[in-house]
Amino acid sequence: DNSTCNVVMVAAKLLKEAGLTVVVLEARDRVGGRTYTGPKFKYVDLGGAYVGPTQNCILRLARELGVKTYLVNEKERLIHYTKVNTGSVRNCHVGLTVHDHYSAVFFSPKIPANAPWTCRYAEQWDNMTMKELIDKVCWTRTAKDFARLFVNVNVTSEPHEVSALWFLWYIKLCGGTKRIFSTSNGGQERKFVGGSGQISEKIAEQLKGSVKLKQPVVRVSQHPGGVSVETLTGEKYQGAYVISAIPPGLTMNIHYEPELPPIRNQLIQRVPMGSIIKCMMYYQKAFWKDKGYCGTMMIEDENSPISMTLDDTKPDGSCPCIMGFILARKARELIELTKDERKQQICQIYAKVLGTTEALKPVHYEEKDWCGEQYSGGCYSAYFPPGTFFQFSRALRKPFGRLFFAGTETATKWSGYMDGAVQAGERAAREVLHAMGRISSLEIWKEDEEAQEVPSQPIRESFLEQWLPSVPAFLSVMTISTVFLGALGLSLVKPSMRPHFFK
Amino acid sequence: DNSTCNVVMVAAKLLKEAGLTVVVLEARDRVGGRTYTGPKFKYVDLGGAYVGPTQNCILRLARELGVKTYLVNEKERLIHYTKVNTGSVRNCHVGLTVHDHYSAVFFSPKIPANAPWTCRYAEQWDNMTMKELIDKVCWTRTAKDFARLFVNVNVTSEPHEVSALWFLWYIKLCGGTKRIFSTSNGGQERKFVGGSGQISEKIAEQLKGSVKLKQPVVRVSQHPGGVSVETLTGEKYQGAYVISAIPPGLTMNIHYEPELPPIRNQLIQRVPMGSIIKCMMYYQKAFWKDKGYCGTMMIEDENSPISMTLDDTKPDGSCPCIMGFILARKARELIELTKDERKQQICQIYAKVLGTTEALKPVHYEEKDWCGEQYSGGCYSAYFPPGTFFQFSRALRKPFGRLFFAGTETATKWSGYMDGAVQAGERAAREVLHAMGRISSLEIWKEDEEAQEVPSQPIRESFLEQWLPSVPAFLSVMTISTVFLGALGLSLVKPSMRPHFFK
Repeated sequence: DNSTCNVVMVAAKLLKEAGLTVVVLEARDRVGGRTYTGPKFKYVDLGGAYVGPTQNCILRLARELGVKTYLVNEKERLIHYTKVNTGSVRNCHVGLTVHDHYSAVFFSPKIPANAPWTCRYAEQWDNMTMKELIDKVCWTRTAKDFARLFVNVNVTSEPHEVSALWFLWYIKLCGGTKRIFSTSNGGQERKFVGGSGQISEKIAEQLKGSVKLKQPVVRVSQHPGGVSVETLTGEKYQGAYVISAIPPGLTMNIHYEPELPPIRNQLIQRVPMGSIIKCMMYYQKAFWKDKGYCGTMMIEDENSPISMTLDDTKPDGSCPCIMGFILARKARELIELTKDERKQQICQIYAKVLGTTEALKPVHYEEKDWCGEQYSGGCYSAYFPPGTFFQFSRALRKPFGRLFFAGTETATKWSGYMDGAVQAGERAAREVLHAMGRISSLEIWKEDEEAQEVPSQPIRESFLEQWLPSVPAFLSVMTISTVFLGALGLSLVKPSMRPHFFK
Repeated sequence: DNSTCNVVMVAAKLLKEAGLTVVVLEARDRVGGRTYTGPKFKYVDLGGAYVGPTQNCILRLARELGVKTYLVNEKERLIHYTKVNTGSVRNCHVGLTVHDHYSAVFFSPKIPANAPWTCRYAEQWDNMTMKELIDKVCWTRTAKDFARLFVNVNVTSEPHEVSALWFLWYIKLCGGTKRIFSTSNGGQERKFVGGSGQISEKIAEQLKGSVKLKQPVVRVSQHPGGVSVETLTGEKYQGAYVISAIPPGLTMNIHYEPELPPIRNQLIQRVPMGSIIKCMMYYQKAFWKDKGYCGTMMIEDENSPISMTLDDTKPDGSCPCIMGFILARKARELIELTKDERKQQICQIYAKVLGTTEALKPVHYEEKDWCGEQYSGGCYSAYFPPGTFFQFSRALRKPFGRLFFAGTETATKWSGYMDGAVQAGERAAREVLHAMGRISSLEIWKEDEEAQEVPSQPIRESFLEQWLPSVPAFLSVMTISTVFLGALGLSLVKPSMRPHFFK
């Protein structure tokens, strides 16, 4: 229903294919939600854009709609810039060198994807922020700083803002630290030729006439015979079922009759959206390639607005561009500047990191602040502050009468991504079909086969990953070592945890 | 505007007295918001109820409206029940014995009430949960457990859920740990004869015809000439200014045109309401008094639904009653039970703590779950999770065009209380008068004189309070001591921190 994303379009598509009559009520004047392809420089993805191996729901949907993918450039060297030590690596195996140290401790395969609250350490980890976990498992400033960047980049929020349980669950759903963070063989491997916005637009064409734009939902009233939905413009719709595909926190926009159950009523106050400004800097030519850099930069510098970049040049080599993220705390600080001030600051850090004044002469600057969007609330996704995931997450996709919940936040794989949005939308649609008696409960959840055109490579485990203790073991060791081992514990643990990036 | 509380009534009253035309749009079918006096047993305060010295705004308003206060019974002994050690104290100076240990470390007079983000340690403390602070400054299980109860009781949330900066600020606004937690000479000293709901009802009578019930606001549209407001029933109102008096998180219920500024758009997703079920157990007689207990119980027992009780017998001795709070994590767990199951569990713990089976034979049980209230979201108040107060609190009461913000969360004294609600409502009303050119900016903020009928006694500082280090000093000492002093630091700090309640 209301605003956001492929999700509801996907659900509507599935239900229409099943022969049902559907109406899509969209709050904005466009479809796509947190994906949005603007018209500048042929096309520009201002929102969700990246896809990669194991994201088989979105890849299958794109294939079906005739939207092709292309590889994000990672041929040349990547740059990891810190105030202390700047290095670059030759090939695309950044995942295999940078993240060894985090993989073991941040990857907890034992958290059940569909019921994280049942995990053995659920309450203990949920009562802890990621900052607390990082401070326990990373003993050097370098390691802590990179862990902060890792959280910033992956969930557009700060380590001290998010529940450790939630973050570990989130990483697990994306296949681990390497899969989520990597370009090649990871979540950022590809983009869509022509932009991600096409997915929703093409579905909207198929649903022609059923998609109502500028219709924010203000009321959902359930009665024995069905559901009535009212929009801000005063239009009223009657239906048998409603699928809500807006981020959980934005369902606060709706007035419910009867009222939501207490846990859901409080859940939706507790899931803020992350903070990001997506920035595209266009240049005359891809000068970074001439210098042997692919355009990927990880920047650890409190004075840099941007924390992470990727080459955003079109697949045919036209429109040379560097895409950069202003993330979390920095988004909230820098939103107070003018667009031009941000542009200047970004050019300056690019010049510094790439080591050339060519970066100071862009031909165009495009940006999208998602923090100010009423019908997104932020991007990429919702996060769970400490103490909320354990007690409230069970209400995330629990249907309330005739009201069902989609949205990428309710996915059990690649939650927060386009892939999760598709999984959630289709699952919610099948929940409705089940409620109607059309399919059995066993048919609600489906797993896609691997996309042939985007095969996944196994994630290679390094020596450290295999032998470093897992989170629970590590936390236990820490407790013991800090109390009894003192300096000895320090010397035992510290070297193995110290990152030796790009050596 | 929309729902909640004395706040908007107070603002409307002030503006009407200034000669303006006001309309109050109330979401519910009643006025009062988070105060609500039901009809059972003469009257019963199901929401906000307590007032005490230094709460001069609400006391002045009550006096003006002819509503009198009475002392909550604290003549007999109080009970502090723990699994380890149960004690009781003779007189009402619970504050002076129990809280010595917390006062110094939890009281930070240097946090500016009106600009907490400017505090020297603002960022550092905001990036920390209260649980982290407690773990640093309380070295024994007993001390930690009591600190958790202290957070639960004061802000209906868990130590691991709230920002340390926010909590320290909140305590400071209430005059410190003793003032906020005490009955005599503290926040729970008195109740209103006839119930707190009268305050809003009496103002509503004065505003007769201007108060529109069952009118949840769904849209606020600003244009150069003024503001238009639409409600869920389709009614439209035009005005020059709007005062929003709903909790910040519940302003998510409204669609804005133009959109809110980015920081406010994200702030309102980040301020969840606390969790509480308020429970009144009525008995044939006040048997606890016969046993020498006043009815105040602080209960530390994971199996007890109730964490804190007070005598709720009427001032004339009729309707003997014990009021108890189900708080935070426990509210979210026990909301899944039936009302009767909760009643049984509560009676059982009262019998155990008071040492008599008389507690098992109540004549009536009344409860109010605030977690399920669509137009409160929870009670008493909003809390700030870690990382949000520092970056977002500056937007709390910053006007947005013709839209002004009241609500107890925006107060600079007794925020979260009825007193803060009155301060905020009147301040917002005077902001409007200032915007109209009726008063100068210096007249916006006013401080009430001390209520003659409810004088405050100075809070006596104990030896420990005077000589224990303050929060910043303590945290510094901790850092040094944990690293360098080891066991020595432990032996130095531990004894002075160990609570010796009720010895």
